Amino acid sequence: MPQLRVALGQINPTVGALEANSALILGTVESAAAQGAHLVVLPEMAITGYPIEDLAFRPSFVDASRTAVTALAERLAAEGLGDIAVVTGYLDRAEPPVTRVGSPKGSPQNSVAVLYGGQVVTRQAKHHLWNYGVGDEIRNFVPGDTISIIQVRGVDVAIAICEDLWQEGPSAAADAAEAGLLIVPNGSPYERDKSDRRLELCSRRARDGVCALAYVNLVGGQDELVFDGGSLVVDAEGQLVARARQFEPELLVVDLDLPAATAPMPPPDREFAGLKVTRTILDPEPLPTYEVEAANIAEPSADLAEVYGALVVGLRDYVRKNGFESVLLGLSGGIDSTLVGVIACDALGAANVLGVSNPSEWSTGHSQTDAAALASRTGLRLDTVPIAPMVDAFREAVDVDGLAEENLQARIRAVVWMALSNQHGHLVLACGNKSELAVGYSTIYGDAVGGYAPIKDVPKTLVWELARWRNAEALRRGEQPPIPETTIAKPPSAELRPGQLDTDSLPPYDLLDDILDGYVEQDRSAPELVAQGFDAALVEKVAALVDRAEYKRRQYPPGPKISARNFGRDRRLPITNAWRERLVEPPPSAAHERMPPP
Amino acid sequence: MPQLRVALGQINPTVGALEANSALILGTVESAAAQGAHLVVLPEMAITGYPIEDLAFRPSFVDASRTAVTALAERLAAEGLGDIAVVTGYLDRAEPPVTRVGSPKGSPQNSVAVLYGGQVVTRQAKHHLWNYGVGDEIRNFVPGDTISIIQVRGVDVAIAICEDLWQEGPSAAADAAEAGLLIVPNGSPYERDKSDRRLELCSRRARDGVCALAYVNLVGGQDELVFDGGSLVVDAEGQLVARARQFEPELLVVDLDLPAATAPMPPPDREFAGLKVTRTILDPEPLPTYEVEAANIAEPSADLAEVYGALVVGLRDYVRKNGFESVLLGLSGGIDSTLVGVIACDALGAANVLGVSNPSEWSTGHSQTDAAALASRTGLRLDTVPIAPMVDAFREAVDVDGLAEENLQARIRAVVWMALSNQHGHLVLACGNKSELAVGYSTIYGDAVGGYAPIKDVPKTLVWELARWRNAEALRRGEQPPIPETTIAKPPSAELRPGQLDTDSLPPYDLLDDILDGYVEQDRSAPELVAQGFDAALVEKVAALVDRAEYKRRQYPPGPKISARNFGRDRRLPITNAWRERLVEPPPSAAHERMPPP
Repeated sequence: MPQLRVALGQINPTVGALEANSALILGTVESAAAQGAHLVVLPEMAITGYPIEDLAFRPSFVDASRTAVTALAERLAAEGLGDIAVVTGYLDRAEPPVTRVGSPKGSPQNSVAVLYGGQVVTRQAKHHLWNYGVGDEIRNFVPGDTISIIQVRGVDVAIAICEDLWQEGPSAAADAAEAGLLIVPNGSPYERDKSDRRLELCSRRARDGVCALAYVNLVGGQDELVFDGGSLVVDAEGQLVARARQFEPELLVVDLDLPAATAPMPPPDREFAGLKVTRTILDPEPLPTYEVEAANIAEPSADLAEVYGALVVGLRDYVRKNGFESVLLGLSGGIDSTLVGVIACDALGAANVLGVSNPSEWSTGHSQTDAAALASRTGLRLDTVPIAPMVDAFREAVDVDGLAEENLQARIRAVVWMALSNQHGHLVLACGNKSELAVGYSTIYGDAVGGYAPIKDVPKTLVWELARWRNAEALRRGEQPPIPETTIAKPPSAELRPGQLDTDSLPPYDLLDDILDGYVEQDRSAPELVAQGFDAALVEKVAALVDRAEYKRRQYPPGPKISARNFGRDRRLPITNAWRERLVEPPPSAAHERMPPP
Repeated sequence: MPQLRVALGQINPTVGALEANSALILGTVESAAAQGAHLVVLPEMAITGYPIEDLAFRPSFVDASRTAVTALAERLAAEGLGDIAVVTGYLDRAEPPVTRVGSPKGSPQNSVAVLYGGQVVTRQAKHHLWNYGVGDEIRNFVPGDTISIIQVRGVDVAIAICEDLWQEGPSAAADAAEAGLLIVPNGSPYERDKSDRRLELCSRRARDGVCALAYVNLVGGQDELVFDGGSLVVDAEGQLVARARQFEPELLVVDLDLPAATAPMPPPDREFAGLKVTRTILDPEPLPTYEVEAANIAEPSADLAEVYGALVVGLRDYVRKNGFESVLLGLSGGIDSTLVGVIACDALGAANVLGVSNPSEWSTGHSQTDAAALASRTGLRLDTVPIAPMVDAFREAVDVDGLAEENLQARIRAVVWMALSNQHGHLVLACGNKSELAVGYSTIYGDAVGGYAPIKDVPKTLVWELARWRNAEALRRGEQPPIPETTIAKPPSAELRPGQLDTDSLPPYDLLDDILDGYVEQDRSAPELVAQGFDAALVEKVAALVDRAEYKRRQYPPGPKISARNFGRDRRLPITNAWRERLVEPPPSAAHERMPPP
């Protein structure tokens, strides 16, 4: 059987940074060459970054991507790397263009190019466009209708792009039954429990096709998404033979014994399941036998470590890729801002994290001592700006009480943070968790301000779990746990009026999070939730709170997706929406229920 | 030739308000019956409102829609209206469900039902799903695969749902060559110049099919969208025979002479272009000849009247459908807030509009006198809350200068507005225009706060045009022009530092808007814009400002779409985006350009 050394470049490109991304790929191929690789595979849209969204409609951007991939092929050859087959994702366009009404402008295609001998020798565009969850690819791309088989050192290699692997039925993967290796460039964002499903899928497709499979994923953050890497290779029996780490760039190199190409000469082009198959021979001669090296098989992370890793990478890349160096967050001594502070320290280094404590007349003593303890444990800088004088000035000018007065305090804090941000260039972090965001338990333009919201997809109960996990992890490493125990133990409070507790307005968080999981993530109806055992009045209340808070979520900053359905592009609901889950028929006046003031 | 009196119910349902919408349809059919109509057609998704977005994934909502349409059929019969054929849009599901990976959960379908004799006698689901611009229907719906022909009083009537009419090639419209009438329920949102395109399309399809065509559209606002009505009927030669007004509900009744059904008995079901055709005979007997009445042929509005109408309806429906009664806006005496104030008075009545003037040390005298003049001309209430004491309190607490100090003032104003909103229940309006939003010339959490942004899709030059148009319209009606001439005439300024003018930071607005039209709406490249005659440095500057302001736009409130591409779901760009339009190749550091602080 011919041998092949395959290198999977699990890289972290930046959307739109074509030059920097090309340089990153060049460096990856150089490293792979130094390790003797014959075939290097980069992720989906590696040249442009991913997802590019409506940048796809910009002809100058498509042109620049095409130019970049051609230039990269030439550069590789100029560097003496022209005899390595390099497969990379990039943006191209369909030719001739598709002219159907509403078809994506300019016919952009999510494509991969094969670079060899200084040229783009063949290309293939994604067949099955990802158009659910946070994916809008039917909006942005025209599907491909070709399958490119390349022959590398006597082995036939087929390509499937991300979603092409997930779809059942006739696909490039099935066609690859005739290939010795199926390579799969991906831009597959993280969510909990997904890495197990990926391995299971890859194994199944390998067994179906009787064909080894090399799956290479992006790594790094892009707005709401975190690509977790975890690139992997399975053999034709579906057995795992190599796996890269999660959340870090890695060049995963693996030696494979693969079947010799059955067709030594190119057979005539033919059709398969409506797709045109082309075969390109790069090098028909199998390699002389060489010594096999052991590949890395990284252990997958445990669930909490994985979630925490996603939050750190999401924040770090949002900050760095947008040109910031430091972040600012309001530190209340509560568990949410404390966890965000620790994540920020882990992502950026404590020297780049500024905590601001804004005590008011209702702040308890422990809110300041806990914030100070966090600062001392982590090394982040803590500034204190009491808000009483500003509150007094507003009270002189505007008559407020009740909720309006509570919100006023939260907004004055936000004005302080934004002033410091504007003056010193820190990115402000919003510290709201998913449970709060779900029920609207936050002050718009108050605690909700910020450029990024690191825990917006983390339910409150998971916030506590992550805090305990992070402390335990510190102990495991022989370090001081960063989070004060009192912060974990105390009952949550917004401290906007004397003795206020979250449970004054909301059910206990373990109960709330269970209802939210059913209502928000599973789309369960009120009767179904009651049948699960939840109190009927509570179910109606929670569902109504969720529905009515949509306007607040629309103005909330982006944050990393870790769940199967985050608030953001994953859940698109109308703001104007009179539908309410009820156990009985709604009264006729349902159309004009009052939205609570922000 | 058989006669038929067709009534098009141009109604304004509310998303999610199934009971209220059903009641609205019932009332519409009662009115149509009182006018002797034999066939009543309601718009797309009239039972649920439109667009429902991810509400489609909620099984309880689909069930409720199915129940509602059945209940409506029964109710119509109980009211003695069972012998009128009623065609209405609603939400249903495909049976059996589609199980492909990523196919919409629960297989929801954008459907129409035919109600007759107390039953849903047949249904049809949309074939071509609208998935460009602001439409995400492939995400939300499974396409239909049937065509339902109904025979009404001896006339064969076919149905096409909105996008099914726009798509070229085999379609229900083409099939309708065998029908005497094609009815088209629509949810077609307003944009400039669209009503002309609709008439042209309807005429062309009628001529293609040699078949009269009745096009019924929704009216009213739903978040970003404004449905403008303008329902119309063309005869088989494509001649306009009836047209409803824009932006108002109307029951458009028209008498048509139509060809007799060629097949008096139901022919066997057959296939057409992959669609299964069914034929349902409701009433095979042509009507006795009756006296024809003249139908309304409303004149279409002129461009500026149409835009202004969309802004008024968009605001009015957002406020009312979300249960608010009154709005609050900061009045600076400038053209933007003044126009928004007048729109609000026209939408809600001056008694429901509160203007707040927040003079600072840099405010000019005319900013207050112009705001007062607006209040006196329109009757809106004006409150004045000077901000100097609050500014002083913040200056004591935080050291700021330059841009940070300018933004501080804008944010203090916003805190005042939000306090008044929370205390008194007014919805806050953001007064930014499209040009500002494009280049990020606004203060996030300052002038950008609000629940709705009435002119966010209106470029600055169009703001002036609308102001002049509104004043001229007042004169035409013999009323006092609402907008002070000095407000229209003075150079724009944010008044955040002494003598500040917008042109200190931006090119003149007529020039800016031309560049923005090319860059934002047409996706033109920098070299193309320079070839159009714009200064190269200015093009690069404006394009970079637009790209870097994406994070601000994400947190901006919704507002009515009037252009072919609004900021919102119509233009989805990454925040993290290193791509910059340039005339020369970007330097290697392009990936990490600094984002300006908010």
